Amino acid sequence: MAENFMVVDGGVVAPKGFKANGHKDRKYGAALIYSETDAVAAGVFTTNKVFAHPVALSKDVLVNNNVFRAIVANSGNANCFTKGGMEDAKALVKKAADLLKIPENQVLSASTGVIGRRMPMDIITIEVERAFKNMNLENSNENASKAIMTTDAFPKTVAVEFEINGKNVRIGGIAKGAGMIAPNMLHATMLGFITTDIEISKEELTDSLQKATDESFNNAVVDGDMSTNDTVYVLANAQSGVKYTDCKADFDGALAYVSKELAKMIVSDGEGAKKLIEATVHGAETKEDAKKASMSIVRSLLLKTAVFGADPNWGRIAAAVGYSGAEMDMANFDIIISDISLENQAFLVKAGEQIADCGTPELKLAEEIMKEDKIKIIVDLKMGSFENTAFGCDLGYEYVRINSEYTT
Amino acid sequence: MAENFMVVDGGVVAPKGFKANGHKDRKYGAALIYSETDAVAAGVFTTNKVFAHPVALSKDVLVNNNVFRAIVANSGNANCFTKGGMEDAKALVKKAADLLKIPENQVLSASTGVIGRRMPMDIITIEVERAFKNMNLENSNENASKAIMTTDAFPKTVAVEFEINGKNVRIGGIAKGAGMIAPNMLHATMLGFITTDIEISKEELTDSLQKATDESFNNAVVDGDMSTNDTVYVLANAQSGVKYTDCKADFDGALAYVSKELAKMIVSDGEGAKKLIEATVHGAETKEDAKKASMSIVRSLLLKTAVFGADPNWGRIAAAVGYSGAEMDMANFDIIISDISLENQAFLVKAGEQIADCGTPELKLAEEIMKEDKIKIIVDLKMGSFENTAFGCDLGYEYVRINSEYTT
Repeated sequence: MAENFMVVDGGVVAPKGFKANGHKDRKYGAALIYSETDAVAAGVFTTNKVFAHPVALSKDVLVNNNVFRAIVANSGNANCFTKGGMEDAKALVKKAADLLKIPENQVLSASTGVIGRRMPMDIITIEVERAFKNMNLENSNENASKAIMTTDAFPKTVAVEFEINGKNVRIGGIAKGAGMIAPNMLHATMLGFITTDIEISKEELTDSLQKATDESFNNAVVDGDMSTNDTVYVLANAQSGVKYTDCKADFDGALAYVSKELAKMIVSDGEGAKKLIEATVHGAETKEDAKKASMSIVRSLLLKTAVFGADPNWGRIAAAVGYSGAEMDMANFDIIISDISLENQAFLVKAGEQIADCGTPELKLAEEIMKEDKIKIIVDLKMGSFENTAFGCDLGYEYVRINSEYTT
Repeated sequence: MAENFMVVDGGVVAPKGFKANGHKDRKYGAALIYSETDAVAAGVFTTNKVFAHPVALSKDVLVNNNVFRAIVANSGNANCFTKGGMEDAKALVKKAADLLKIPENQVLSASTGVIGRRMPMDIITIEVERAFKNMNLENSNENASKAIMTTDAFPKTVAVEFEINGKNVRIGGIAKGAGMIAPNMLHATMLGFITTDIEISKEELTDSLQKATDESFNNAVVDGDMSTNDTVYVLANAQSGVKYTDCKADFDGALAYVSKELAKMIVSDGEGAKKLIEATVHGAETKEDAKKASMSIVRSLLLKTAVFGADPNWGRIAAAVGYSGAEMDMANFDIIISDISLENQAFLVKAGEQIADCGTPELKLAEEIMKEDKIKIIVDLKMGSFENTAFGCDLGYEYVRINSEYTT
């Protein structure tokens, strides 16, 4: 994929013709993203068989409509598994549509928060009104990204720009997510809202989003649990005057970058996480094997706790690859622990031979690297030519604290 | 399965004609289990593609021989991924065979401990000699079960007896395991050594062990990581004078009970665990669905931390079942949290309807039950007639502490 773009400020309001805002008061928040002109939309959703009302509602709206103008989202309540939840989901959409003076079927929605509790619609309605009131503020992107936070420690936003025939195309995004981030989804894994001013068809946008999601959100693991509410939307309003067909590779590359950056922010903000783990498996027999093996590494609780303790326990990497289901030959594969720049690489296993043992320079180098904030694990399976990179984080005391105290 | 048996003392030395002993000095230990007469043997092993040398060696010995007399096991080093590891595995077996004056190919072996470090054979050999010296002591079963412990907090042992035509048949076992206990194995998940004085063929014993393992060790989850060393052996020496063909159901039931008790002890001893979780999913369309859904519950990090915090966050149960891959209809299923006696049952979801909300008596009852040491979760999928029970534990600060400090 081409990387012919530069990073710019503004998140979802960086692309032309988009406004946004959000407001949060203690537990509950709401965000609005609005396109001044008609936009096409694409979305990917949780594949959990237990899913929230806004997921059911928006899937439907997305299939049955071709023009969209807005996204409304709330935090604090997932609106999942609640009597009357569908009415609440529709009421949330109606509130946004009324304020923005657009049809209800042009609004996509999402919710995040606790499951099984009725939406406090009075409070959330007020937050939507507050978000609407100030949609022209300078910090509106920041407000929106903060309003959708739950256990997130920091807001997540990124935007890029690239030039085609003298015209600028922009893609911007905000995301939310820190726990319940899991693998094995066909679709999304958290809340992510992306805007772009490219001119693109619904089908093209759907394809491009699906590809970007597979390389980003679907490669991200915090705890292996899959949410009932995971949703990623893209709105494209054509205001750049640039057609997708004139810059497919550039656009796909830029969308994948935006998605990957948001996904990395999410795992870096894994509940209580202090370290980002990037696991690249190459030399796999198939893409699926590369994915299985790399996801198995970042999913391994034993590895996550070892990274938390800065312990270069590479045996846990070998074990995680071994049980991942990927084809491998334990007599011929490599394990490297590297810093994120790839400048310092410690070979721990080479062609199936253990290089690192107590007191070896390789183990000492690995110990040093493990103290860094970002750690790269590289495994060469030497079986074929496929590769995948998965993103994960360490697991420490804070994860336990946050999740054992969440609803009580 | 029949449950026509009583629990007796003695563990692996309860059955006639078996001796055992073990010795452990700080990090390293060794255990011996010995049959005074010829025995048949069966074994199940890790399906990890990275596996330890004793696994490779013993798989081979088990296939190529029909008579066995002993099991030798060491703790402190997994003998996995080490140069010269196969020599070390053979040397361990030879040491046991020499001491017991039996052929090497009649000895099964297993190792547990750190991966990727050469076996300290001088130390382990001394431990095997110490174990051998006192094989007639009264506490020899306890010594053996303690010698194979690594991060285990307590030794695990159980034995049962049943009567057939005036003769007693006994089955006894010891096990080891606290971390790296995972699902999705075709075979075993930890170290378990079982002895019995039944008269049985190798094929019958293999079948009976496989069935027992599927219902016990393979239903146990501590952290979802699969070890490179998991092994379960059964030795059967025919000394009871009772033929398996005369008591199939009794024997299978008793072996399953012994396996299940050992598996429950393992999850109760999950690293840092304080609580046992039993998750029963019934009404599943297939046995596989029942297994997927029940395992998904006990595997969910979010549920495990909720149980640690005594938080009846039933939404996490619904989500875990929803992403398990089992067929379900979110509009028609039940979730119950119960005490282990099933006397107090809190209905949280009934026929797809949320029963428990803030302040309801059901939620309050669930909160009380969550404070207990053993918690039962019951899910009725209402799709068919299949059932499975999985065993898990909570996850708290101690798990993080143990696993972030393990090798360093």
